[in-house]
Amino acid sequence: MRGCACLSMESRASMAPAPRALPYYVAFSQLLGLTVVATTGAWLGLYRGGIAWESALQFNVHPLCMVIGLVFLQGDALLVYRVFRNEAKRTTKVLHGLLHVFAFIIALVGLVAVFDYHRKNGYADLYSLHSWCGILVFVLYFVQWLVGFSFFLFPGASFSLRSRYRPQHIFFGATIFLLSLGTALLGLKEALLFKLGTKYSTFEPEGVLANVLGLLLASFGVAVLYILTRGDWKRPPQAEEQALSMDFKTLTEGDSPSSQ
Amino acid sequence: MRGCACLSMESRASMAPAPRALPYYVAFSQLLGLTVVATTGAWLGLYRGGIAWESALQFNVHPLCMVIGLVFLQGDALLVYRVFRNEAKRTTKVLHGLLHVFAFIIALVGLVAVFDYHRKNGYADLYSLHSWCGILVFVLYFVQWLVGFSFFLFPGASFSLRSRYRPQHIFFGATIFLLSLGTALLGLKEALLFKLGTKYSTFEPEGVLANVLGLLLASFGVAVLYILTRGDWKRPPQAEEQALSMDFKTLTEGDSPSSQ
Repeated sequence: MRGCACLSMESRASMAPAPRALPYYVAFSQLLGLTVVATTGAWLGLYRGGIAWESALQFNVHPLCMVIGLVFLQGDALLVYRVFRNEAKRTTKVLHGLLHVFAFIIALVGLVAVFDYHRKNGYADLYSLHSWCGILVFVLYFVQWLVGFSFFLFPGASFSLRSRYRPQHIFFGATIFLLSLGTALLGLKEALLFKLGTKYSTFEPEGVLANVLGLLLASFGVAVLYILTRGDWKRPPQAEEQALSMDFKTLTEGDSPSSQ
Repeated sequence: MRGCACLSMESRASMAPAPRALPYYVAFSQLLGLTVVATTGAWLGLYRGGIAWESALQFNVHPLCMVIGLVFLQGDALLVYRVFRNEAKRTTKVLHGLLHVFAFIIALVGLVAVFDYHRKNGYADLYSLHSWCGILVFVLYFVQWLVGFSFFLFPGASFSLRSRYRPQHIFFGATIFLLSLGTALLGLKEALLFKLGTKYSTFEPEGVLANVLGLLLASFGVAVLYILTRGDWKRPPQAEEQALSMDFKTLTEGDSPSSQ
């Protein structure tokens, strides 16, 4: 069992203290995320007449819901394992899954809003790059949630199956988050160009605010990605978890980490 | 020296065979990258009248150069350490640095083209989200290259300084690549909406081709990111390199990996 699984059990205390800088980075990411949501609200309130379900304002439900769901909440769902470092793994998993469910439901409301708005006004659906990316990301998000649930929360998947799927889950989770951000930027640009047209080049206040919102969206993505990928900030497995998994693994499969 | 540096030296053969699936993924990424360049060329040729420096076609130099430089070549520069696994580290570094220089020069031509085109036609500069992101990414790309060069190619930086900067260099390298892709998508959308306007929603052939190009750009990004981040595909340090660095480290600093 010695060798390369990579940190040895002895070096991971059960209540490992959080890395010193991590809380500041998390706080900064949350400040950025909330600023993104607030700026989206300000843009829709100041320049688009606000939000309502039953009127031309129904369209505005779409950007707000997508930003809250597929940007802010999705980003926070990814950070759960960095923030709750000493909770039981199962609690953290459930929170991760639940945040994604909230994100999904809010995004679904945002999707219904735009399709309903298009239908009422006789506009075409799904012709733009934004809409193609959006539908693709939404389907991938749903599939990722289902597969993640079956592997990690539904009892049944073996320890070795889980550890083989884990890196894929993490990679595609981060990728779907980045694609969501890219899709949001495309949508913002689309909304802006359709309304402002050539007035965009005269530094209209709405254009400048929307550009700032775009930079904030990208910055939130970079902050979440930085916290997620920093090697020494990864969640250390709790001592009991590791012992349990190893017991389970030995009992059910009898293979060792080196056999992979 | 035992414990956590994570793979032990014994487990890394000097001429480690490449992971079996890696060449197929690299081949696929190259196919995607070339398809992106070809599709950009096709779009500009079929729907934008082709390319020239001295005419209204000067604008078209911009997207082509940016896609070749800051998408295809930048992506390939990141893959160098996965593809050349058994070359001397210095050779691989020089290739990585050179590819970035080519990418930078080609992107610079693309930038000059668009500013020159704007100047000749009296158009405003730097008003759009695409242009803000573009300038930011270009400056970050230049700074990243300079800092990378001073740490890793210019002799002088110590082993410990290099190993502390390396994770930052990798993170910001990947981030700048992703931001370049996002900026390309914004530019594509801008070019499309300025020309097509509401005709975009009638599934004009140009709109459909540009949407496909957008999806190809995103797919190239995902493919490069997957190859880069897969843990078991990272470049193993050559035995001599590691011995040399350790000697150098011990001689000059006398600290051990566990002291960080």
